[in-house]
Amino acid sequence: MIDRKAIAAAASRISQYVRHTPVLRGDFGGDSPVALKLELLQHAGSFKPRGAFNRLLSAVVPAAGVIAASGGNHGAAVAYAARCLGMTAEIFVPAGTPAAKVARIASYGAHVVQGGETYAEALLASRDRQAETGALEVHAYDHADVLAGQGTVGREFEHDAPELTHILVATGGGGLIGGIAAWYAGSAEVISVEPEGCPTLHDALRAGQPVSAPVGGLAADSLGARQVGALMFPIAQRFVSQAVLVPDEAILAAQHLLWDRFRLIAEPGGATAAAALLAGRFVPPAGARVGVVVCGGNTDPGKVVSG
Amino acid sequence: MIDRKAIAAAASRISQYVRHTPVLRGDFGGDSPVALKLELLQHAGSFKPRGAFNRLLSAVVPAAGVIAASGGNHGAAVAYAARCLGMTAEIFVPAGTPAAKVARIASYGAHVVQGGETYAEALLASRDRQAETGALEVHAYDHADVLAGQGTVGREFEHDAPELTHILVATGGGGLIGGIAAWYAGSAEVISVEPEGCPTLHDALRAGQPVSAPVGGLAADSLGARQVGALMFPIAQRFVSQAVLVPDEAILAAQHLLWDRFRLIAEPGGATAAAALLAGRFVPPAGARVGVVVCGGNTDPGKVVSG
Repeated sequence: MIDRKAIAAAASRISQYVRHTPVLRGDFGGDSPVALKLELLQHAGSFKPRGAFNRLLSAVVPAAGVIAASGGNHGAAVAYAARCLGMTAEIFVPAGTPAAKVARIASYGAHVVQGGETYAEALLASRDRQAETGALEVHAYDHADVLAGQGTVGREFEHDAPELTHILVATGGGGLIGGIAAWYAGSAEVISVEPEGCPTLHDALRAGQPVSAPVGGLAADSLGARQVGALMFPIAQRFVSQAVLVPDEAILAAQHLLWDRFRLIAEPGGATAAAALLAGRFVPPAGARVGVVVCGGNTDPGKVVSG
Repeated sequence: MIDRKAIAAAASRISQYVRHTPVLRGDFGGDSPVALKLELLQHAGSFKPRGAFNRLLSAVVPAAGVIAASGGNHGAAVAYAARCLGMTAEIFVPAGTPAAKVARIASYGAHVVQGGETYAEALLASRDRQAETGALEVHAYDHADVLAGQGTVGREFEHDAPELTHILVATGGGGLIGGIAAWYAGSAEVISVEPEGCPTLHDALRAGQPVSAPVGGLAADSLGARQVGALMFPIAQRFVSQAVLVPDEAILAAQHLLWDRFRLIAEPGGATAAAALLAGRFVPPAGARVGVVVCGGNTDPGKVVSG
């Protein structure tokens, strides 16, 4: 069960290893200020260490260490967590993972294996390798400990911004939004935002089950999971009130606005939730207090500012 | 008098116009975590709107509007504040002000006049112009309302991180550190950090009075005031415990570290206080709890990351 109790337990388990990231309130073009949860300031540049630490601290890790597949951010988080905890890590990423993310994973001392077109292919390769080594698999989203770890973002956000009525969260495989939706459990509306090129939760909710979706566009390296996790899906059916899509141009515009007004460098996936406001794909009802999770900053800043 | 009462009054006056910026705790290479005051996330990308708003809201502003000289950040802040309050603004900057800062000032609707080698020359030009127009001069640092406004950084920092024993602050003309030192008034040690190329407070404290100092190096556009303000100097004599200098290489290293570990883009002046820790120019005594003001982010991020 991924519920508030499991998430609170995760928070205790990981608190000495992760940052309680700050909330910044500011004008985002609408009638009332928006609360930005600055999860891009987390260790390893995204929210992912929360789930990674909760998984590693909850498991018995064999001498062979840990293994994970990732579009980049989860791999960096697992590599970071493994280094902190004195474990070895092997990370599989697809060919399209940005060089900066590959370098970051390697900088934490992990062994990086790059290949395949998508995250899904990297996952298959990592599983073949896991069968040989016996290392602990750290799934990027479809594991209860990972979901509970990501849910700690919701716990902090509610604590620091208890007034919020609507929370915008980007969805890839759904670990982050699954954990956050499990935390709020209907006490605030949780809205999924995905790029038009990666509509995994949007398509799953329409189909009534996780289905394979296209993987493309600007944010594919962080949100291109192809299919949402089995564990998060029932949580989303119950506690995610809308799943909206945004065009890549809105993601770019959100990156620019986050830099221009807030001096924040968000990667495309990190700016996707904010893009729903800019593109009018989510229009806050009167009186709404909107929170936006800015979930990652692993990008080349030169692209954000000159783009 | 710039004291806690004046600073608290400034805080009330400006609260609806400025951001209460967050504090982020993290490992900065030493034995205990450092608290970073993320003032680079302020409107207009630096702490400067605090003093600008406090000045504009405390004065009777003539129809001719406001006028200021600046290395860039103060000009952006005055332009921003003037736009918010419906006033016209004319901003004088030296030739070396980065294009991004000039563009930012203009983007807020101010008239920008660029010329002269240094801030000091731009100040003279702005005073000639002020004599013609009668606009209200908004000094970049040497005015009680400006100092009290900048002191609100200290007020927030103490509120959010009451455990701090040592506060590192970059000094240019001394408005920020003067305000912060007036707030703490000895209850925590306030340490001045300056680039070796712009040792204004360092030289003034040695001389026993504000003296003209060299202006050069990486951070000259934000810290190159040539001479500290007359109003801040007695505050610094009383409440600034050390004035250390850092080489430009340490400033660059601090910019890189802030990006690498925190995904923050600080301009050279914004990273100068942190550089004192990296360069060992300030070594925290045992048991110290160190706070660092990261005071500006108006730079080309491509320079931070590729540099």
